[in-house]
Amino acid sequence: MNEIPYKIYLSEEEMPKQWYNVRADMKTDHQPILHPGTLQPVVLDDLTGIFCTELAKQELNREDRFIDIPGEILDFYRMYRPSPLVRAYCLEKELDTPAKIYYKFEGSNTSGSHKLNSAVAQAYYAKKQGLTGLTTETGAGQWGTALSMACAYFGLDLKVYMVKNSIEKKPYRKMVMETYGANVCPSPSNTTEVGRKILDEFPDTTGSLGCAISEAVETAVTTEKTRYVLGSVLDQVLLHQSIIGLETKIAADKYDIIPDILIGCAGGGSNFGGLISAYMGDKLHGKKAPYFIAVEPASCPTLTRGRYAYDFCDTGKVTPLAKMYTLGSGFIPSGIHAGGLRYHGMSPIISQLYEDGYIDEARAVKQTECFAAAVQFARTEGILPAPESSHAIKAAVDEALKCKLSGEQKTIIFGLSGTGYFDMLAYQEYNSGKMQDYMPTDEDLEKGFAALPKV
Amino acid sequence: MNEIPYKIYLSEEEMPKQWYNVRADMKTDHQPILHPGTLQPVVLDDLTGIFCTELAKQELNREDRFIDIPGEILDFYRMYRPSPLVRAYCLEKELDTPAKIYYKFEGSNTSGSHKLNSAVAQAYYAKKQGLTGLTTETGAGQWGTALSMACAYFGLDLKVYMVKNSIEKKPYRKMVMETYGANVCPSPSNTTEVGRKILDEFPDTTGSLGCAISEAVETAVTTEKTRYVLGSVLDQVLLHQSIIGLETKIAADKYDIIPDILIGCAGGGSNFGGLISAYMGDKLHGKKAPYFIAVEPASCPTLTRGRYAYDFCDTGKVTPLAKMYTLGSGFIPSGIHAGGLRYHGMSPIISQLYEDGYIDEARAVKQTECFAAAVQFARTEGILPAPESSHAIKAAVDEALKCKLSGEQKTIIFGLSGTGYFDMLAYQEYNSGKMQDYMPTDEDLEKGFAALPKV
Repeated sequence: MNEIPYKIYLSEEEMPKQWYNVRADMKTDHQPILHPGTLQPVVLDDLTGIFCTELAKQELNREDRFIDIPGEILDFYRMYRPSPLVRAYCLEKELDTPAKIYYKFEGSNTSGSHKLNSAVAQAYYAKKQGLTGLTTETGAGQWGTALSMACAYFGLDLKVYMVKNSIEKKPYRKMVMETYGANVCPSPSNTTEVGRKILDEFPDTTGSLGCAISEAVETAVTTEKTRYVLGSVLDQVLLHQSIIGLETKIAADKYDIIPDILIGCAGGGSNFGGLISAYMGDKLHGKKAPYFIAVEPASCPTLTRGRYAYDFCDTGKVTPLAKMYTLGSGFIPSGIHAGGLRYHGMSPIISQLYEDGYIDEARAVKQTECFAAAVQFARTEGILPAPESSHAIKAAVDEALKCKLSGEQKTIIFGLSGTGYFDMLAYQEYNSGKMQDYMPTDEDLEKGFAALPKV
Repeated sequence: MNEIPYKIYLSEEEMPKQWYNVRADMKTDHQPILHPGTLQPVVLDDLTGIFCTELAKQELNREDRFIDIPGEILDFYRMYRPSPLVRAYCLEKELDTPAKIYYKFEGSNTSGSHKLNSAVAQAYYAKKQGLTGLTTETGAGQWGTALSMACAYFGLDLKVYMVKNSIEKKPYRKMVMETYGANVCPSPSNTTEVGRKILDEFPDTTGSLGCAISEAVETAVTTEKTRYVLGSVLDQVLLHQSIIGLETKIAADKYDIIPDILIGCAGGGSNFGGLISAYMGDKLHGKKAPYFIAVEPASCPTLTRGRYAYDFCDTGKVTPLAKMYTLGSGFIPSGIHAGGLRYHGMSPIISQLYEDGYIDEARAVKQTECFAAAVQFARTEGILPAPESSHAIKAAVDEALKCKLSGEQKTIIFGLSGTGYFDMLAYQEYNSGKMQDYMPTDEDLEKGFAALPKV
């Protein structure tokens, strides 16, 4: 066995040249997505008005286990990838744990997160199809930034609907996107029909990913040579994000690192689905695999307290319906700082894998606990994490402390999906002792469930 | 020759284990620093009241060419180093130049710059000496953030005097430092005698590095078990920063990359001095070396329009005097966004090397030109640069465009010393077309020169 360095970087030759489509290996396929008008399973033609054609094909692909990554995308990946698999020696020492802790760090790019992995792919396919513009939504701003970077690179126009709550908490995010040439609009806005309708009904809303999606879709279908792209939830996004898990496993295998536990934060599922991809592939083939933990905010407990049901992906009910864990498309979570985890639903792939027991555990954690873990991590490992990623840190620390009690030398890998450099107002709130926790009551949740579509 | 990857990362074994002390190889040593009271060359005892003893020794060391990096510092370096040497393929394509452009990227850590290289060393020596606290100043906030990280890691108290102008332009910087446990105070402040004096004389001042240094020194010498540390200018800092140049040369040599031009931005000289270290060593030994270009802001043109003279390192005249290129310690530059380059003086080592012709060129550039280059770089290479680093980008782009005209295939390496994630208000100003350029008049400069101490 080679000696394990602090950071494992793959060489360019070792980097994956194909994405892995976990859906092709799933024992039970997830239920098909449904047309919002007919409630019938969508076919390619239903999707190509909203999505780029190639991405629509990927969305419906359950045959190909591996899909070649086009050369232009590989070129872009090489600018900021591979991301390192890092041994958290200093955190281990601080916790005084016998556990070995590793993290896959996706924050070493200007978007500050894993989102760039799918953004560059989606922009590439749009450009190749001859489109001139894209629309999207963004919550925490990481996806919007990533897509702005990708659109600047490929020369595409971009309109970003950013959750109002996030714009207020992260003004710099908007400026970064604008620096990359994007047009950023707070959502809900009065630039769309659906936005106006939501504002009429909830004039004081701080917005949600669900609302912003509705607005972005409406703008895409009413603008020429323009399509809508989404940064999470969809199968195509999990496909692109499989690069995280593939790299992780290649790096770990190279040094005979066999994780006992794999931990990721889960909002719409893009980070978690990407991180677990290669190991989940093993599990689906009956091989030994780590214990998978998806971590979500207590304020938006989709997997831990949601229903597995058909629902709209957006608040305005203009998108197709997906069978997924959901809190109801009308559920607007409290204004916690992990904007990227404030989504009512969950990737249909992750939902099905969880339903079938392939994902071992979903865990909800409070934001003050997450920030405590984030600050501890920053002070020991140097990197200031994104509020989203701090959910995974919190769970990793808890698992490592369990090892301390039991004396077990477990190997833990968690996904450090991004950095918190644009989240300083959140840190300031935490540092000042003013941060609060939020948890929906059962009554709040029942209201969301009652509004689920009857399918 | 191996094929050149997008990013060259050294393995842990290839990383330097010693710093390089360029001063030991200089044909003409720089003039000694002088005690501010006696105007005699300082001896070790004069310095140990202000600086940690080991750092004071390094400051006076002109014998040892190489100094071992202590194991604890190497451990910390391994958390965020080596930094990559990156081939800017996309920028080359955008410029349509036959030049080969590389950049050494020092921004992949939470401090966002090269400053961490010296911060961890200085905090380590302080801890080892049994001190409990440090004081310092920060301009752009990169040094303060870096030192906050290092002090959090080693368990030291830290008081940071941050240039008022920078706090206003970069509020998030303060929050990051506070997250790492630092006590951040806007400078000039009324917490020190020298601060009160400066405020009396210039009540509307936006501050300067020179003022902040005076306050930090005063606080250090009046607080128990506390010393002052500085992020640039000093020989010890250039020693620690030599890690940048050593890594650069090892990586370049590995792939037979021979730079024709080496470009860095220069404020106090820590980044530039670090970047050129190993190649300057070659030059001092009579070997072939690249053409060295130091880039500074037109608003604070220390090398291009300053005097080579003895001067105080701070505005309050409490520090030792150094023979250096200077605009006068009373010179307060306009409020440009590259806070890290707003310093009246220049490292004595860099000054002497420039005076003796070992540094081939100093070049002053305007901030609007720098931001134009920064945005072009961000859109093509993905990384959003610090305003300071954009000075080097501007010069690199200009050199690459000269190659386009001449058809020469020169190899250019520049230092991308940091990221601009905390500088978004500056980018917003640029994006809105409201950014202005500043240049001191000859009269402004004469005023600074007239106040130079008579030594």
